This record gives sequence, C-alpha cells and structure tokens, in this order.
Amino acid sequence: MGKKILQPPKGTRDYYPELMAKLRWIFDTWRNVSIQHGFVEYDGPIFESLELFRIKSGDEIASQLFHFEDRAGRELAIRPEITPTLARMVAQKANSLPRPIKWFSIPRLSRAERPQRGRLREFFQWNIDIVGSDSVLADAECMFVAIDFLRRIGLTSDIIELQVNSRTIISSLLVDANITPDRHEHIFAIMDKYEKLSDRQFDEYAKQQGLSADELSAVKDILTLKDIDAVSSLTKSQESKEELDKLHQLRDYLHAFGIEDYFVYKPSVVRGLAYYTGIVFEIFDKSTKLRAIAGGGRYDHLIKLFGGPDMPATGFGMGDVVLLELLEELDKIPADITRSGLKFFVIDADKQFFNLALKITSELRKKGISADYSSKRQSLGKQLKSANQAGAKFAIIVGQETADENLITIKNLQTSQQQQIKTDEFIAKADEIE
Amino acid sequence: MGKKILQPPKGTRDYYPELMAKLRWIFDTWRNVSIQHGFVEYDGPIFESLELFRIKSGDEIASQLFHFEDRAGRELAIRPEITPTLARMVAQKANSLPRPIKWFSIPRLSRAERPQRGRLREFFQWNIDIVGSDSVLADAECMFVAIDFLRRIGLTSDIIELQVNSRTIISSLLVDANITPDRHEHIFAIMDKYEKLSDRQFDEYAKQQGLSADELSAVKDILTLKDIDAVSSLTKSQESKEELDKLHQLRDYLHAFGIEDYFVYKPSVVRGLAYYTGIVFEIFDKSTKLRAIAGGGRYDHLIKLFGGPDMPATGFGMGDVVLLELLEELDKIPADITRSGLKFFVIDADKQFFNLALKITSELRKKGISADYSSKRQSLGKQLKSANQAGAKFAIIVGQETADENLITIKNLQTSQQQQIKTDEFIAKADEIE
Repeated sequence: MGKKILQPPKGTRDYYPELMAKLRWIFDTWRNVSIQHGFVEYDGPIFESLELFRIKSGDEIASQLFHFEDRAGRELAIRPEITPTLARMVAQKANSLPRPIKWFSIPRLSRAERPQRGRLREFFQWNIDIVGSDSVLADAECMFVAIDFLRRIGLTSDIIELQVNSRTIISSLLVDANITPDRHEHIFAIMDKYEKLSDRQFDEYAKQQGLSADELSAVKDILTLKDIDAVSSLTKSQESKEELDKLHQLRDYLHAFGIEDYFVYKPSVVRGLAYYTGIVFEIFDKSTKLRAIAGGGRYDHLIKLFGGPDMPATGFGMGDVVLLELLEELDKIPADITRSGLKFFVIDADKQFFNLALKITSELRKKGISADYSSKRQSLGKQLKSANQAGAKFAIIVGQETADENLITIKNLQTSQQQQIKTDEFIAKADEIE
Repeated sequence: MGKKILQPPKGTRDYYPELMAKLRWIFDTWRNVSIQHGFVEYDGPIFESLELFRIKSGDEIASQLFHFEDRAGRELAIRPEITPTLARMVAQKANSLPRPIKWFSIPRLSRAERPQRGRLREFFQWNIDIVGSDSVLADAECMFVAIDFLRRIGLTSDIIELQVNSRTIISSLLVDANITPDRHEHIFAIMDKYEKLSDRQFDEYAKQQGLSADELSAVKDILTLKDIDAVSSLTKSQESKEELDKLHQLRDYLHAFGIEDYFVYKPSVVRGLAYYTGIVFEIFDKSTKLRAIAGGGRYDHLIKLFGGPDMPATGFGMGDVVLLELLEELDKIPADITRSGLKFFVIDADKQFFNLALKITSELRKKGISADYSSKRQSLGKQLKSANQAGAKFAIIVGQETADENLITIKNLQTSQQQQIKTDEFIAKADEIE
C-alpha cells in the first residue's frame, strides 16, 4: 500500500462530510428552485455510447472523455455533459411527452482534461432546459431560474451580472462586414476568447487564426458595442432586426420577473460550441477573475440531430466548482449548513442508565426525530464533548432522577441553558422543542 | 442516426421524471432516516484507481468493472461499490476524524456484469457504516437504521425479515467438524448458495466444489440449525461461546429498539465476500423470490488493509433495484410522489391578460412558492389541460375581473372547487392555501 492510493484520482475530490454538506445545500437549493419554477427532474446513465457524444461534438471529443469498451466491444464513455442524453431521451419519447418539456437535472459529470482552477475531472452541473417552445419567454424563464437561485444564495445584482447576446445578430453583423457565413463558426470561437485575453494578446491570437486586418477591425467593432441601442444603429437585415426585437422583448420579460438589473448586453458572449442558434448568455461575478458561473442559450436543431423531431430548445448549465469557489471567496456559505442536522444527543450520567438512554434515543428515532448517543460508556463530560462533535443541538441527560422520578435534563448546546422535564412529556413534544 | 442510439447503454436505465420521482422519494427517505440516526453524509469520486479495487477483491475484479486509462496511463475504474473509497478516506484522515465515524452515502455504482433481474449495470446503493466501535451495539444500530427505513416505506415485519448469523460461530462449528480454517473461505462461498439452489442442486454443487460426503453432511447440519438455542447446544469453543453471547446481546438491543420481530437466525447467511469478520446479516422479503434487499456485517480489518489503523467497522448496503421491484410488486409506492410538487398553474382567460398572469407567477416564485404558466397563448380549456399535465394542485385564472376588480379565480384541480379572491390577498397567503 503506497501513500498515493490514499488520495482520490487526479482532478477529483473526496466529499468528506464538511464539503458534502455544502454540496447538499447547493443541490437542495437547485432542486427547490427548479420545482418552484415548474421544472421536473430527470437523469440518465453515467456512461453513454461514445457515438452519442461524437454526434454533437465530432470525433475529437473522444480525447476529452474517459472512454472504454464493455465485454461485447461496445464503445462507452463517462458523460462530460448531459445535453446529449437529454436530446436522446426527448427524441426517444418525443410524441408522448407533454410540451413544453421543462426538465432539470443535477448530473455528475467527468472529463479527461488537465485539471485547472475551476475545472476538475469530476464535477456536478445543474441543468435547466425548456424543449418545445420557440418563444423568447422560454429564454427569459431560464435566465429567471438561474438568477432566482443565485439571488437566493446571496449573489445579488451588485455581485453578479447576466451577460446576454444573440448569435443571430452577430452573424448578421459579420455578413454586413463581408465575412461569409461559412467562416462564422470559426470567428465565434475566436470571439469567445476576447474577455480572456489582453487586447494585444487577442489581436495576435486572431491573426494566428487567420483573420485579416480588415476582418479583425470589423470583429473588434462588434465586440466593443456597448448596449442594445448601439447594436440597433448598426443592424440592417430584416432577420437581424427581428432578433433585436426579441432582445428587447427579453429585457421586458426580465423586467416583469424583477431581474432586469442583472442584465448586460455583451457582444463577446457567443459560447464556443457549434450548436447554439440564437440568444445565448453567461453569468459572471463582477469582482473576481473566475470562469463563468453559468452559461447557456437556444439550441433549436439539436433534438433533430439526435434523431428526434425538429424541436426548439433553450437551457443552461451551472457547475458546482466555480460556484463553490466564489461562495467561499465571498464568505457566502451559511455557517449552520455544515452542522449535522442532529437534534438530540442522549447521554447517561452513569453507565447503569445506558439502557434507559438507549430506550429514549430509540423512541425519538421511531418518531422520526434525529437522535444519537455515545457508543462508548464514558464520563458525562466526554459524552458532552461527543455531543458537540456530532453537531447536536441539545444534549439529553439521563441519570438517577430519570430512574427515580422520571425526569430528564435538556441542555441547549449553543446557549448552555438547561432545564428538567418529565421523560414522557419530553418524548411527546420533542419535535416542537427549538 | 440508427434507432439503437436512442436507447440507454445495455443494463442501464433512463431516469424519466416518473422513475426519477420514485428514486427521489427513496433517496430522500434514505437520507432522512440516516440523519435521524445520527449519520453524516459523504461521497467519493465516481472512478477510483483500479488498484484500489484489487486490494479488496483481488486481480479478478478487473473483469467485473468498467475500467480505462487516463492520458498519463493511470488505470482507473468506475466504482462497483463505495466500501474501498470509505476505507481509503477513513485511512487518509484516521487521526482527525471523531470516533465512532457514523457515515452514510447514496453512491451511484456500476459493474460490467451481464444484466439480470435485480442486477443492473448501473444502480444506486444506500451505505451505512460505523467505523471505530467494536461493540455489538454498533451492529444492532446498523440493523435498526435499515429496518427503520423499510418500516417507514411500508415494509413491516409481516413482509420482510432480518436474517442474522455470525461467521465466527460458523467457523468454530466447521473446526469442530474437522474442517480446517484454511478451507472456510471456500466453504462460506458454497454455503452462500444454499438458499438459492434446491436441496439436490446444492448437494451436487457442493460435490463439484470438492466437498466430501462427511463434510457435506457436517455443513448441512450447520445450515439447518433452526435458532440461536440450537446453535448453543452445538457450541464448544470459548471464542464461539463469546460470539454467541454477542448474538444474544444483539437480540436484546433489537428488542430495545422495538424491532425484535424482524429477527431470524439464519446459518446460511455468511455473505460471499472474504472481508467479513463477525456478525453478518441480510434482509429478505418473505413472499417473493427476489434477491436480498440489503446485506452487511462486521469487517474489522478492512481499514487496515487500505493503509489505515486497525479499526473495527460494521455496515450495510441496500440497492435501489431490488427495493424498487419489490415496492412495485407490493404496490407500496405512494401515488402522490410522482406528482410534480407544482402548486399553482396560472392561466389567462384571454391573451391580453397574459402579462398579468406572468406577473402573478413571478411574484409567487419570488416568494419561493412553486408556480408555472402556459407558455402558449391558447384557450382556457387547453391551459387547464396543461395545468393538469404539469401536475399542479391549483389553477389560478386571470381575466377581465382581475384587470377591473383585482379578483382572481382559484380552482382546485383535484376537487374542481373554485372561488374568487382579491389578487393581493391571494399572493399574501398563497403559501397557506392547501
């Protein structure tokens, strides 16, 4: 046994109770917010056929995945994202699912890339998707869900911003600048780097990627558009004008939802991936240099690509890694969530009362109330220490007076206040004690 | 796109919302029961170094796992169980973790075996472990947690039984029958088949596995012991007598916990795996032919095997597949858990009132109350149908009287009762409406 094997594999985490409690808090809040906005939960297998990921991302995806063969030689891969699974599942039952499909999931995902800050080899990602609606209201709703969650955990509009763009508009502006549509995909991938590089680095990178001086200048004119009105003055084509109307409508919806103050128009947000079709967005915090907290947008042709009908779709993903880093940095994780949730810790004043202590513990648990006891027979002081270590709210002390007079002592472990009450009365109202 | 790729990989499931709701109910109950009994949650990475699984299960394990290499050539495997991870994590922080360690987890697991009834290639398994206590009370407590869960979901003692044994006692009885300890491991694996085969099949199997007629006869004498008292009459060695005392003590604890009626002594329960050291148990339903619902026992030397200190440990695992099958068969899944949990569905009587409907939806959500609306502008009847499909409890109808007199209509979708109230009043007390 080398020392190495005590560690988790490179780029992964051990979820000890303290970290797990933080994740559980995030997962529960993701889930509650999803349900409140009318989404239902789904999930898929942790591994899929490797081919499924190739459909969306091409052959080169294989090198970024953990893949393997089963005994029959089927090529399988651990999922790096859940969207291909969603597309497959929707395509499989497209005719029987009521529309619009409003689904959420909190998949565990893996990728084989080199681990970096904010990017690990194993992570969790909240996914919100609306399939079957082409209305901009669906896009607005996805943004509302994301912001509602962030607001609820204390990330208000002074801390974060919702950066919105439309690939349709950018495409149209590129055409106006004489850059033909066959090159837009490539240009989007370049534009996606704009915020991550210095001005000089970006110019160099764009040249390396084959942009001419004229093209670079046109691209930078687009990238420096300050707001929707600035776009408006440049927009010429009918398609682009219609899309601009959608952005205005989006902003009206965000206003109706009370989250307009998070909205920023950001032409550099194009999302690196090929399958986005219209409005796209990313959520960033304003103060730190962290990666995007969330990102998503409209992907109207993906379900068809996976063998389903042509169904419009929009959604986003939000990972746990950047979010947790940001929350730690801003000290926004509530102190009490790492407590165990244990309410009572039953202590015997002497080992002769242990069976009585056990009986009381057991009656509490049978009533569905969390209770534990010291598994070792030791001094009252040591048992109180164990009660604190276990994160219990109250210690219940069982002793001679319990045997003689049916009385137990309740000690509040936070305030140290204590009182005696009848055992039966305690059991009867244990769930009301706060 | 062939049709095949629409399906999940062989032996795995797609968790559509209906199945997901059932799993969510099971997971939440597992979690709540764990916390009530004083356990805290942990988890580990979905893949571990392949070597970690070899430590516990030998080289042959590789063929039962999905394994692969990362770019640096590290051999990794998707976890088929979480116990090696638990042992690694405990070993890593053995000195800083307060003892006893009471941990639970609900890991997602995979194995590369041929799928069969009750055994899939991907499944979930509730794990309860107490590390650092050698008291039989810890064994009793694990059983209590398992039974408490099963009782809570409606599997009472008329449906299931807790089959208990001790490997120490069986070993001692085998020695008394002149079967030397070096062969016990092999005999345990044979005994493990007893309940799965007919009497004739078992005799044949035992002979194939190299048991002599005398040995088979001795093994069958042990396998047909009816209760602890019958064991008592056979027991000779001191070690065996002490272990028998533990079984009696165990039964007393189960009595104190109020679950003695689930207890059955079963000499065939030896658990196939090499690492169990003392008391072992399995939980079965009495009526069906399904596999064990849960199984576990004491494994006192495993933490040391993984590089930690020599810490006594006991625990069990309960999978989702057999449990779900049994619950479906006995019709024990509550009907309302597959409902979405959506409370309000807001409907406009005419599209001119849609913005008003949206505003009301948004105010409900902002208050943390689940609410949705029809994303399509369509007739009131169709919107009511959508409300039902979405599983909402109430429809809220917004129309002319809302605009003119600030009145909305609440319709209970289960009873069809409806009433009008002031919009403000509705929003204010929406969380109290039942």
